[in-house]
Amino acid sequence: MSDEKVMVIFQPSGRRGEVPKGVNIIEASRLLGVDIEALCGEKKVCGKCLVRVEDGHFEKYGITSSMSHVSPWMVEEEKFINAERKDKGFRLGCMATIEDDILVFVPEESRAGKQVVSKAARDIHIEHNPAIKLYTVQVDKPTFEDPTGDFERICMALEQNYALTDLTIDIQTLRVLPDALRNGNWECTVSVWNDKEIIRVRSGKVERAYGMAIDVGTTTVAGYFCDLTTMEVVDTVSMMNPQCKYGEDVMARITFHMTTPGGLKRMSDDIIEGLNDLIEKAIKQTFPPTKKKKKKGEEPEIIEVPEEGKTYLRLEKEDIEDITIGFNTAMHHILLGLNPEYVGLAPFPPVIHHSMDIRARDLGVKINPSSYMFVLPNEAGFVGADNVGVLIAEAPYKGEENQLIIDIGTNGELVLGNRHKLISSSCATGPALEGAQLAYGMRAAPGAIERINIDPDTKEVDYKVIGRDAWRKFSEPKDMKAKGICGSGILDVLAELYSSGVVTKTGRFNKKALKDHARFRKNPDTSQPEFVLAWADESSIDQDIVITQKDVRQIQLAKGALYAGCKLMVKRMGLEKVDTVKIAGAFGTHVDREKALTMGLFPDCEIEMIKGIGNAAGDGCRAALLNVKKRVEADWCSRNVEYVELTVEPTFEKDFMEAMQLPHMTDKFPHLEGIVRDEILNQ
Amino acid sequence: MSDEKVMVIFQPSGRRGEVPKGVNIIEASRLLGVDIEALCGEKKVCGKCLVRVEDGHFEKYGITSSMSHVSPWMVEEEKFINAERKDKGFRLGCMATIEDDILVFVPEESRAGKQVVSKAARDIHIEHNPAIKLYTVQVDKPTFEDPTGDFERICMALEQNYALTDLTIDIQTLRVLPDALRNGNWECTVSVWNDKEIIRVRSGKVERAYGMAIDVGTTTVAGYFCDLTTMEVVDTVSMMNPQCKYGEDVMARITFHMTTPGGLKRMSDDIIEGLNDLIEKAIKQTFPPTKKKKKKGEEPEIIEVPEEGKTYLRLEKEDIEDITIGFNTAMHHILLGLNPEYVGLAPFPPVIHHSMDIRARDLGVKINPSSYMFVLPNEAGFVGADNVGVLIAEAPYKGEENQLIIDIGTNGELVLGNRHKLISSSCATGPALEGAQLAYGMRAAPGAIERINIDPDTKEVDYKVIGRDAWRKFSEPKDMKAKGICGSGILDVLAELYSSGVVTKTGRFNKKALKDHARFRKNPDTSQPEFVLAWADESSIDQDIVITQKDVRQIQLAKGALYAGCKLMVKRMGLEKVDTVKIAGAFGTHVDREKALTMGLFPDCEIEMIKGIGNAAGDGCRAALLNVKKRVEADWCSRNVEYVELTVEPTFEKDFMEAMQLPHMTDKFPHLEGIVRDEILNQ
Repeated sequence: MSDEKVMVIFQPSGRRGEVPKGVNIIEASRLLGVDIEALCGEKKVCGKCLVRVEDGHFEKYGITSSMSHVSPWMVEEEKFINAERKDKGFRLGCMATIEDDILVFVPEESRAGKQVVSKAARDIHIEHNPAIKLYTVQVDKPTFEDPTGDFERICMALEQNYALTDLTIDIQTLRVLPDALRNGNWECTVSVWNDKEIIRVRSGKVERAYGMAIDVGTTTVAGYFCDLTTMEVVDTVSMMNPQCKYGEDVMARITFHMTTPGGLKRMSDDIIEGLNDLIEKAIKQTFPPTKKKKKKGEEPEIIEVPEEGKTYLRLEKEDIEDITIGFNTAMHHILLGLNPEYVGLAPFPPVIHHSMDIRARDLGVKINPSSYMFVLPNEAGFVGADNVGVLIAEAPYKGEENQLIIDIGTNGELVLGNRHKLISSSCATGPALEGAQLAYGMRAAPGAIERINIDPDTKEVDYKVIGRDAWRKFSEPKDMKAKGICGSGILDVLAELYSSGVVTKTGRFNKKALKDHARFRKNPDTSQPEFVLAWADESSIDQDIVITQKDVRQIQLAKGALYAGCKLMVKRMGLEKVDTVKIAGAFGTHVDREKALTMGLFPDCEIEMIKGIGNAAGDGCRAALLNVKKRVEADWCSRNVEYVELTVEPTFEKDFMEAMQLPHMTDKFPHLEGIVRDEILNQ
Repeated sequence: MSDEKVMVIFQPSGRRGEVPKGVNIIEASRLLGVDIEALCGEKKVCGKCLVRVEDGHFEKYGITSSMSHVSPWMVEEEKFINAERKDKGFRLGCMATIEDDILVFVPEESRAGKQVVSKAARDIHIEHNPAIKLYTVQVDKPTFEDPTGDFERICMALEQNYALTDLTIDIQTLRVLPDALRNGNWECTVSVWNDKEIIRVRSGKVERAYGMAIDVGTTTVAGYFCDLTTMEVVDTVSMMNPQCKYGEDVMARITFHMTTPGGLKRMSDDIIEGLNDLIEKAIKQTFPPTKKKKKKGEEPEIIEVPEEGKTYLRLEKEDIEDITIGFNTAMHHILLGLNPEYVGLAPFPPVIHHSMDIRARDLGVKINPSSYMFVLPNEAGFVGADNVGVLIAEAPYKGEENQLIIDIGTNGELVLGNRHKLISSSCATGPALEGAQLAYGMRAAPGAIERINIDPDTKEVDYKVIGRDAWRKFSEPKDMKAKGICGSGILDVLAELYSSGVVTKTGRFNKKALKDHARFRKNPDTSQPEFVLAWADESSIDQDIVITQKDVRQIQLAKGALYAGCKLMVKRMGLEKVDTVKIAGAFGTHVDREKALTMGLFPDCEIEMIKGIGNAAGDGCRAALLNVKKRVEADWCSRNVEYVELTVEPTFEKDFMEAMQLPHMTDKFPHLEGIVRDEILNQ
């Protein structure tokens, strides 16, 4: 990198700007705010960041771009770019460094798509006991006989009327106190945090306070904007985790921190900025689109807009007085600016387990200036505050029933037990079950294949994409606009591939059955067998969408890890069978329970006892927002759930291998073990 | 004011820059960092901000300056500028607004001089119990069997070894924890604040921690830089209060806030910047001038420099882990950014009495990032945290003896009592006793007359100035370089004027005795009688230094207010006489006790029981720094000292009038009362 600057223009977005000479194209895209998929976090292994460097003079921008303006072609790129594409100027964004002005085209397949995030709040029972409570007090004005100061004046009233003692006040709130008191003619409403500290003062009588429960996933962030006084969920807002550009999974982001000076701060700043955007979004939706923002200082006021048949709360950022937040341990560390290096290294100790009350302004989160954020505690390893959120939402520690709770995200998190004992673990399901790391894997965005049927006789494929109700067979090819396969389609694909005979029990393509089939072929570049799910003319990326032998293996690995993990936990608890399986996350909402049992995703259980519990981590954050007792419970959980490291169990490898078979291998087929292992490991 | 900019150059400093067209010259001087005296806070009444606008083209700066480039002459300026000076281009900086480029000369008399600040730490007994305590712990490294997180790991060690429980940690400290722990091979030293929160972690074993006790006076700021482990005062640093440019007394600064949008923030920012400068200064002095600053992260290390015969601690700002701070109520409010308006208005309620623990970074004070500042509590009215400091340093509430403690600053603060009862009050001594508001009053800086003798027969004057040991009669006139009269000289001047017969008992110039005397004259501009203390050729400002009739009245008012205040307090307590009079502040150190008693500054007392206690407010801050119990005592004091408002006492006016007489009026001279009052009020 040098002080010299070069001009870079990204198409089709048209984003442009100067970047230091010598940065690579991914780096430049980040600097200019262009989202390019970088699933592997620039480890040069995923090949997702494919871009095309244009040749020619671009009058409109006054630059001349040329393939010779980037660093020379590297041998590693051959794995992902064939000769024809190479000639057209295709490069990997993580490998080509910029030496002179260029114009870069980002093909649709490389664009980080906007995911369809659906993390609605479930209706769960929460006791009302928020950390923020409002008290209205009327005090006498000072006289020569009683010239007591403003703060002590309201403290005395709070003690007399509400038995609150030993209150403190944040300096930022103290600054508004004298005028708030006088403007309200010596009546004011104070917000008291945890019966300890005054964090807001408003003139006169005010009856509402708001808060936000935030669940930061590796890929998506969801915020539940709640009325702290009525417990109502005013709105649910969500967004992509802006850190996805640093890598799809947490290990990629930890690697980004370890290899990039200032990388941790950049990732932390990005997610904080994201939270502020999310808050801004929630606030904006409380204003009628036809009305201007209300003037500063005016009290929140509910407005009815009869022509829309709606009421609007007209809130400001300052009206958010409390935040609870949960995430996995790595995301926890990165957001808080804590070195995530050690949590990524055996024996994976976090920097802190305990929950924290952090002044929002100390993190740069823009809400009521004196307010705190409650950061849920971490358990162990990658099993973080998000799992604690799941626990306090589901409270398996309160009943006799043996519950297995599975949170399938990029990292699978497992909890098993009842009120006598709880154990937790994590298993590297990898991002395959969420659609990543597959040749045409993608997030649950428009164009993603989410349902599929394969005819056992003809091996012909019918499918459905997100954003279009009609199946392929009822549509014109050009209307499908397929782009890839998303998480909720993955298990469908695998089950259909198996039940239609396209792949065998071991997961290998059935070459005999597929002989001369138009959809089955060997990829000329990679020599990998692949099966076409959608033809180029049905796609929006002008390419056949295929599932490769390697993809099938990835899914097998994921399901194997999950099943083996569950099985070992059941064994650890001395159980034969669990009473309930609860599946948290989007996967749990969409998964076909029967197919999941058949394909061997989790241990035997009555099918009606398998329950999707939606975004339970988010529900836990919401419970902690509305009931402080849940915060105490969270800390209890984080230290009383026994963490087991599954990979060190002696039978782990064997169980893992067995569980990779389709549907799933039982002890009845021990002879297949070696075959599966060889196939998978030696591919 | 407009968007248009004009160029302003200040001489002799040479400071220059563009300022918005239409600002006045004082405003421009602040914008460009030039200190011009503005004692009255731009209320246009002190006439101290005299400047000369030059006429001509200044090649060096490429500007043409002209008297016509400022706003027209105003009638209020005639009071301070005679016709001759007016013709030379003299203006008041607070009245002349800038309409075009100008070059301004600031005469020496108008420059805000650097005061000789001498606030050394006294040797007082303090119990050792600082808020910051250091604990070194060695922990085991994490294993698969015990993958407990870093924070919990050190908490367990702290609980086992030191019985510390329920500790929290600030996010900024948590960020350095993982690497500090590993760099020290799992040994680290933690700084624990109030047995509650970990505010610093350093690798390995460290034995020292430092703190600063800061006394913010209206005019000067003193910092005691202390070793928290040995209680030693490492260094004493001091500076002018940078807010002096907004007005000499607190009322002028409150007015500045009320009349200038953003004025409070500007004053607050200025004093915070001042504190950071003070800290920087203290830190710099721990480095040998011959050595470079040590590298970041290197541990503090004491260095001996044999050639200087000294040892240096080589500290960094981060090594300051605690601060205690005291000030009067108005300065308290302004520094903390609290609206000071109401504390300046009857019945003078402060925004808060209670002490506060404020994270230093929340105020922008740059020390160890997680550290707190302990802000001493306020009593009532203007009797603020500084007086609480005096109280906890002297602890009159611990003995039987009736102590009268007088802190003479710009505002006089009085406390009287013993362990049974304590009352406090403030009296508007005004800044006269500190040298301000007199025609030639000035701060205790070089050139200030501090001692004087007047021959009763010839009425000839001999005097001594700060910065020169020899008296006038042993010096060449040109060597005196007199500039004005400072606080410690004021009482001398008054006593000498009276005892030499220059003024009468009522404070009037004795016209008969002074008839045709060269030193006595009527000022041609003001028609005020005045007496010359130093001739123009003995001065550095090329003017006769005089004391005017009005000056004498100001001093009488101050001493009257102080004496009447003391008398009323003694009466309130039902006493005849007090056992001890303690005088805090620079005034107490320098005052001639006999002259003070004779002139009637405070009530009768055995002369040997009058004690100067130096900067007791600063000592109190230091006590609170080194002993947390003193912090609790401070809060107790602030709410258990009964504040009495003297001005509402029925006899106040009568007592005040009587006390203005020289030496001091007793009930034996009731016939003089009317004369004094008429003389003073009708001048």
